[in-house]
Amino acid sequence: MKLASIKSGRDGALYVVNSSLTKMASAADIAATMQAALDDWETVEPQLEARFNELESGTLAGEIFEQSACASPLPRAFQWADGSAYVNHVELVRRARNAEMPATFWTEPLMYQGGSDSFLAPRDPILMPQSDGFGIDFEAEVAVITGDVPMGVGSDDALKYINLVMIVNDVSLRGLIPGELAKGFGFFQSKPSSAFSPVCVTPSELGDAWQGGKLHLPLSSKYNNELFGKPEAGVDMTFHFGQLVAHAAKTRPLAAGTVIGSGTVSNKLNDGPGKPVTEGGVGYSCIAEIRMIETIENGKPSTPFMDFGDNIQIEMFAADGQSIFGQINQDVVQA
Amino acid sequence: MKLASIKSGRDGALYVVNSSLTKMASAADIAATMQAALDDWETVEPQLEARFNELESGTLAGEIFEQSACASPLPRAFQWADGSAYVNHVELVRRARNAEMPATFWTEPLMYQGGSDSFLAPRDPILMPQSDGFGIDFEAEVAVITGDVPMGVGSDDALKYINLVMIVNDVSLRGLIPGELAKGFGFFQSKPSSAFSPVCVTPSELGDAWQGGKLHLPLSSKYNNELFGKPEAGVDMTFHFGQLVAHAAKTRPLAAGTVIGSGTVSNKLNDGPGKPVTEGGVGYSCIAEIRMIETIENGKPSTPFMDFGDNIQIEMFAADGQSIFGQINQDVVQA
Repeated sequence: MKLASIKSGRDGALYVVNSSLTKMASAADIAATMQAALDDWETVEPQLEARFNELESGTLAGEIFEQSACASPLPRAFQWADGSAYVNHVELVRRARNAEMPATFWTEPLMYQGGSDSFLAPRDPILMPQSDGFGIDFEAEVAVITGDVPMGVGSDDALKYINLVMIVNDVSLRGLIPGELAKGFGFFQSKPSSAFSPVCVTPSELGDAWQGGKLHLPLSSKYNNELFGKPEAGVDMTFHFGQLVAHAAKTRPLAAGTVIGSGTVSNKLNDGPGKPVTEGGVGYSCIAEIRMIETIENGKPSTPFMDFGDNIQIEMFAADGQSIFGQINQDVVQA
Repeated sequence: MKLASIKSGRDGALYVVNSSLTKMASAADIAATMQAALDDWETVEPQLEARFNELESGTLAGEIFEQSACASPLPRAFQWADGSAYVNHVELVRRARNAEMPATFWTEPLMYQGGSDSFLAPRDPILMPQSDGFGIDFEAEVAVITGDVPMGVGSDDALKYINLVMIVNDVSLRGLIPGELAKGFGFFQSKPSSAFSPVCVTPSELGDAWQGGKLHLPLSSKYNNELFGKPEAGVDMTFHFGQLVAHAAKTRPLAAGTVIGSGTVSNKLNDGPGKPVTEGGVGYSCIAEIRMIETIENGKPSTPFMDFGDNIQIEMFAADGQSIFGQINQDVVQA
């Protein structure tokens, strides 16, 4: 089943979307919003599945689905917690700012509490007061939405609380990160609003691609209309989503509608950093990584961070070429 | 005007409460929930004020108000961002764990993104899987709820977006903080669910006590039924709430219903740390501070952190002795 929140008020209007992303049907009579559906998932989910099946089979004609009409699946959420499951990314980014990475990062998930009150729509501009010094970067990630998760849940048990899967652009301001992290309280101003994909899907909709709490497909990032990265989201993911959910729920329950991110998808090759796509590699899911590779090879980075007018497109395709979640497509624009 | 969310479903039912906290009247016909009221505050606020005035004057009989029936004013919120405006507290706590405090802490607010999906009710137990090693601590703070705040708002302008004021017990797990902060991504497991006061109030309801974005009254913490602290919330608050809101809104807008905390209320005396109440001082709003004072005086702390069965009561009284927000009253209980 695929679901979307069509822009309407603060929380959007809930629609089911067919698997080829061409048609949609209102689910307002089942649940007015995505959050309302998640609040009562056990009751609502079978009804939404039935509506989806009617749309998919053509029994229900539906309406034309336009990705540009979508808000993020949860336009505002009660929780957004982002892991760093691709430890390769963490290692590279830390090396880029001369920060050491503790060995425990390979054995215990790293996670930060993000702001969830004002997500961007998938085609909304990234509005920033300035680009100079901010180091505006995209981060292409996979994310899940949970139901109510009890405190202290185990990693394997946690998988059954994952109701929906989507992708995300976790916008980061690299220029503000070192100063902010040095203060010791984690990210705040360095993590402005994130944008999620037009559509979220149930794990079952992903078929064999969803296994062991990982999404086994490449995640495509196109930067200014050129392929920038296509790393495999199922490869080099040190912690699966069950482990990330369990980490978040260690000392408190998680409420329905909690969004948990994977961290920037990143692959290594032959125990070394991945190559750019221009050199036959899988490339990167953020600019910070290519800058690190450039620094290793040339002593300094040559790819600048995003400036006003730059564009990022993030999308994931199934083996048959079908876009699964629709496309995040954002320009950086001066506020 | 005073407002409360009576426990009901996930978001509570909105009631107006009279100033002496004895009577309440449903506001369901105006706005079903606190979040719904905040989403449409300009329209709803005058109607709620009118209902409050009817209840206050006796025109409306109302129902008996029981603090124990209350959820937190926002039982779940889209954002909880906690500042550290009482820099004295930060300095003491850092000294307690041998961490240095950068000088910029006196000139730029420190703030962390907290979890907001599952707040505790003001009389709910603090359920913890273990006490040993967790270092369970209370933190008595003041907090505000904002309307929609534009990105880049100035500190003084920010004050006008503060719609409601309340107090909070920001539960902290001191035993988990050093390890978590060392990882560089801020608090997560070390900050379990917080509990807010039974009632929140408009700034105008606070009269002269609300000035310059600060609440000029002592905040009382009773630990196991003995007064533990009564520091002045308006004293030694290095950053007022307008500055805290502006800090949070530097790179993204804040959505209506954003909760911003002051950090643990803490006073210094004569440029030194405050004394315990047993020695005629104003005492402390958390156990970590008294432990630091003990360490300074005796070489080691003697007051243990909270254990199962311990109780904390947090309350603020007006000059006439009236409880403003009602009482947070929580036991620590094994999960």
